[in-house]
Amino acid sequence: MITANEYARLFNEYISRPDFLPDSPRGLFEPIAYMLGSGGKRLRPVLLLATCEALGTDSRKAIGQAVGIEMFHNFTLLHDDVMDRSDMRHGRPTVHRKWNEATAILSGDAMLTLAQMWIMRADSQLSTELANTFNLVAMDVYRGQQYDMDFETRSDVSVDEYLEMIRLKTGVLIAGACLLGATVARASESDCEAMWRYGINMGLAFQLQDDYLDTFGDPAVFGKAIGGDIACGKKTWLLINAMNEADRDRLSEALTMDDREAKIAAVTAIYRELDLDNRCRSLINDYTRRALQALDEVEMSDESRAIFVELAEKAAVRDR
Amino acid sequence: MITANEYARLFNEYISRPDFLPDSPRGLFEPIAYMLGSGGKRLRPVLLLATCEALGTDSRKAIGQAVGIEMFHNFTLLHDDVMDRSDMRHGRPTVHRKWNEATAILSGDAMLTLAQMWIMRADSQLSTELANTFNLVAMDVYRGQQYDMDFETRSDVSVDEYLEMIRLKTGVLIAGACLLGATVARASESDCEAMWRYGINMGLAFQLQDDYLDTFGDPAVFGKAIGGDIACGKKTWLLINAMNEADRDRLSEALTMDDREAKIAAVTAIYRELDLDNRCRSLINDYTRRALQALDEVEMSDESRAIFVELAEKAAVRDR
Repeated sequence: MITANEYARLFNEYISRPDFLPDSPRGLFEPIAYMLGSGGKRLRPVLLLATCEALGTDSRKAIGQAVGIEMFHNFTLLHDDVMDRSDMRHGRPTVHRKWNEATAILSGDAMLTLAQMWIMRADSQLSTELANTFNLVAMDVYRGQQYDMDFETRSDVSVDEYLEMIRLKTGVLIAGACLLGATVARASESDCEAMWRYGINMGLAFQLQDDYLDTFGDPAVFGKAIGGDIACGKKTWLLINAMNEADRDRLSEALTMDDREAKIAAVTAIYRELDLDNRCRSLINDYTRRALQALDEVEMSDESRAIFVELAEKAAVRDR
Repeated sequence: MITANEYARLFNEYISRPDFLPDSPRGLFEPIAYMLGSGGKRLRPVLLLATCEALGTDSRKAIGQAVGIEMFHNFTLLHDDVMDRSDMRHGRPTVHRKWNEATAILSGDAMLTLAQMWIMRADSQLSTELANTFNLVAMDVYRGQQYDMDFETRSDVSVDEYLEMIRLKTGVLIAGACLLGATVARASESDCEAMWRYGINMGLAFQLQDDYLDTFGDPAVFGKAIGGDIACGKKTWLLINAMNEADRDRLSEALTMDDREAKIAAVTAIYRELDLDNRCRSLINDYTRRALQALDEVEMSDESRAIFVELAEKAAVRDR
């Protein structure tokens, strides 16, 4: 019986092989190795491998697709860091800081093509199907990222628009991991659809938990400073609801405070008064329940099911 | 009988259809339409369509691949402009100037995925083969771009290294266009190989002609200021040869002049004394001859052959 941690370990082992990436030109491949080596939970490859195995096919058959989805995920992080001008990720300098911006852009481009090549490692018919799914997923991720950027300069974003944005930006890639794993296992259409729905709902819970933790997380375990989203005025589920419901003058006064800590405290107080902390938790629980309902529709061993239940619950209750 | 211009016109018509790109989100797709609409010679799609037709298959069968290769080419231009911080292309502001850098990066990413999707528009077996070729070509283009960037900070670049860099950065994509067209036509391996060799040699001639024109072009027709490469110290075939052969002190004195026009005149004088203008022309003619030799190995109608001869000669003798 393979656990989620075991899948992650096998995956990490696979991408640590010395011949995993070409050596040359170093300027192109070193940043890729650096990005992939930064760790993380490996949620997407683990889901992909576990789905393949749960639906009756040896997960080793899906290692190419697992590499592809993680390569793509890290490509989006790499280019997002350039777009956001972020200096740090996972406690290390971002690629465009450690090298430079041109390197970050070009290595990211190469990661997208490499992702495609890994996704396509299968026999011809399957290869096309996997690539088509992957490309549709990728387009949705870009759409989500574009909406996210559009929202920065809009003051009339609705909660529904926000949920659609995170569905595209986060949900679809997690769902895509499940669907690609199911596709390698040549699963039935209804199993594919249910695993997709599991992934979408889990992704929504995952992203909302990110929003929640950034404001209401425990500073001792969160890993970065609490209140970053508030400090930079990021339009999260919490802020969008507050913009709809709070006293406009009071919220705008809180948001324009110069002192970082005072601003975070003032906005957080408004969130609490609107009960947004509990309402966010309740929404996260809703999505988690829907993910588990979708999972119930798929026949699999109890051991396999336990992995998906664990991952969905972890996404929703993690504290960092 | 379809001419090269006719292929370009048909191609432009196809990508001008109102439903060619989705409308929304506009921030994602408008820059893509802007990039593709900037014109250019459409050399790659024309070669792709003409190769398909020359090798016995209706070129309309290859329109998806033609769109894919031009989409990819424009993706590389878009990201190159960000990396080089260029302000203008084809007499218009670059995407990152007209919009912003994040938009340029994200729209470029989407173009790469769209290119992949267009390339794969074929039945399943062919689709995989086309995608595999395309991905290998893309990786070579990134390698070439990386070498180009590496050369900026190196003073010991050899002529052979330079030729390998432009083979990867320019030659392989032109050869890839020919190979993809031949693949759609399900051409023999030897025809595929010969058309690839035609493309590589034509691409080398094309890039060397770029280098030549930037220094020795006619200011009245070149379209941009003569001497741009010298002004910014770009390591072209001309400069690399001069670094190997010219008096080191004299060249370095010329290259460090503050006055732009004086610098261009001094470096150009060194090039002429080394006969680099004639030697560059002679090398361009060599590559063109090799392209035409490769072409001779492929059986096709005289009408088809005339297109490839015309394009190879145009690449080598164009004055802008």
